[in-house]
Amino acid sequence: MAKPEAWRLSPDAYVFTTTLDTRFGDMDTMGHINNVAISAMFETARIRFHHHLGRHPQEDFVRWLVAAVSLNYIEEAHFPYPFEVHCAIGHIGRTSWTVSSAAFQKDVCVATCDTTVVTHGAEGRRLIDGTIREIMEQNALRRPA
Amino acid sequence: MAKPEAWRLSPDAYVFTTTLDTRFGDMDTMGHINNVAISAMFETARIRFHHHLGRHPQEDFVRWLVAAVSLNYIEEAHFPYPFEVHCAIGHIGRTSWTVSSAAFQKDVCVATCDTTVVTHGAEGRRLIDGTIREIMEQNALRRPA
Amino acid sequence: MAKPEAWRLSPDAYVFTTTLDTRFGDMDTMGHINNVAISAMFETARIRFHHHLGRHPQEDFVRWLVAAVSLNYIEEAHFPYPFEVHCAIGHIGRTSWTVSSAAFQKDVCVATCDTTVVTHGAEGRRLIDGTIREIMEQNALRRPA
Amino acid sequence: MAKPEAWRLSPDAYVFTTTLDTRFGDMDTMGHINNVAISAMFETARIRFHHHLGRHPQEDFVRWLVAAVSLNYIEEAHFPYPFEVHCAIGHIGRTSWTVSSAAFQKDVCVATCDTTVVTHGAEGRRLIDGTIREIMEQNALRRPA
Repeated sequence: MAKPEAWRLSPDAYVFTTTLDTRFGDMDTMGHINNVAISAMFETARIRFHHHLGRHPQEDFVRWLVAAVSLNYIEEAHFPYPFEVHCAIGHIGRTSWTVSSAAFQKDVCVATCDTTVVTHGAEGRRLIDGTIREIMEQNALRRPA
Repeated sequence: MAKPEAWRLSPDAYVFTTTLDTRFGDMDTMGHINNVAISAMFETARIRFHHHLGRHPQEDFVRWLVAAVSLNYIEEAHFPYPFEVHCAIGHIGRTSWTVSSAAFQKDVCVATCDTTVVTHGAEGRRLIDGTIREIMEQNALRRPA
Repeated sequence: MAKPEAWRLSPDAYVFTTTLDTRFGDMDTMGHINNVAISAMFETARIRFHHHLGRHPQEDFVRWLVAAVSLNYIEEAHFPYPFEVHCAIGHIGRTSWTVSSAAFQKDVCVATCDTTVVTHGAEGRRLIDGTIREIMEQNALRRPA
Repeated sequence: MAKPEAWRLSPDAYVFTTTLDTRFGDMDTMGHINNVAISAMFETARIRFHHHLGRHPQEDFVRWLVAAVSLNYIEEAHFPYPFEVHCAIGHIGRTSWTVSSAAFQKDVCVATCDTTVVTHGAEGRRLIDGTIREIMEQNALRRPA
């Protein structure tokens, strides 16, 4: 598990921003926001980002499944400060794509998350169609030159 | 995010086994066990494995912090069947180590998880001492020859 | 919110027993099991009890809805000790019933929970039929004489 | 468990308002916000309300413990709409007090929650002092005349 590159810790790399409350129950016995709770916040940010892309994850007969999640914890996060989560499309394959995201508290990156999503239809894994591919390309991570 | 190698999906690769209940609340709106809930089960399995190694994560003045988590979801998991989680030490560095684990339902691997843990003491990141290193080596992943 | 009567803190009052793991994430920043996490364990125990009664909560076209939950926290609960949850039917109305339960750690009652459940069918709130009423009566709380 | 009186379902009864995000993981397999997840949102609203009262729950050597929680679920709640939670002091005793609250989505009351809190100091249950009693009285539920 390689550490994220420095540019991934900047809001400039992303195209979509959303704010999420932290909850008392997100804290664990160490008094910081638990890493699993951070994962839950990235999940909701990803749902909002997908919604922003114009494709809701609950189309009929189609299942969007999470195939992999990779998280890096950069700084300890604290309650009750909100999370600002930035998202972009990190990779587009034939039948899967990756949502790359980074969470900030008080302008400091506390964690990054890459989530690989696949779509299953009645026919099995579904090819990403041209329309959604184009939208995803317009919302790609802004990698440094 | 490369897929896990086939040998990682076998209980034979691991040295420690523990069983965990699934909860009604682990299910999401898709009717399967949510991927964040699976992450929470891996967390508890890891705590038990660390306890088995003889070092409890709540020593005075020392913080065990999760630096990275990488999850692969292999098959959909279902309530109310329990999880059997297998763990081993996947990697030992100078100041960090990785707990590698795999979760099974009804003898089918549903997910793998690799968690990188670091120890912070008053002096900053703490070197893994000889005693704990030896214990970790005795509990290493059993890689195929 | 009156305190539960003493007989409610004894396993003798109940007809069904189930064991549940506690999870690391159930702890909050006070180092004990969080009261919301205890509520989640009562929920899973209730699902198991309903299953034991022979009626699964996922019949077609029928929704079982929780109308009210009343929790009393008696003693602080701790990780990693499991919960033993005892359940019985506390009250049967025309269209709703109450599952009364108590959770124990190391034979000490840590909390009680009463959950009122209603069934909605296509016709609105559904009358409890004779068969399920009889089963519920056989699984009623054992009140002291 | 008596149903809440009608005036408890109006924002007019309360003195403090706070907004909370719902999360994808709050939904259960029925596609609505799970009742335990609603309980977690009331918990965070209560913490914010206590903070607003000027007493933070983490003073040294003092534990604020939840003694009882009573929830009524009025309407099904849905993701991704936020919760607006209204709070007030419902009852002040010698050593305990009740936070009474109601949660709204789109101006409809979806649930009410009454939480009884006690303070433990080194001496055992602590008397509510005059200063905090006065603040609580100023933030009492507005009961209809």
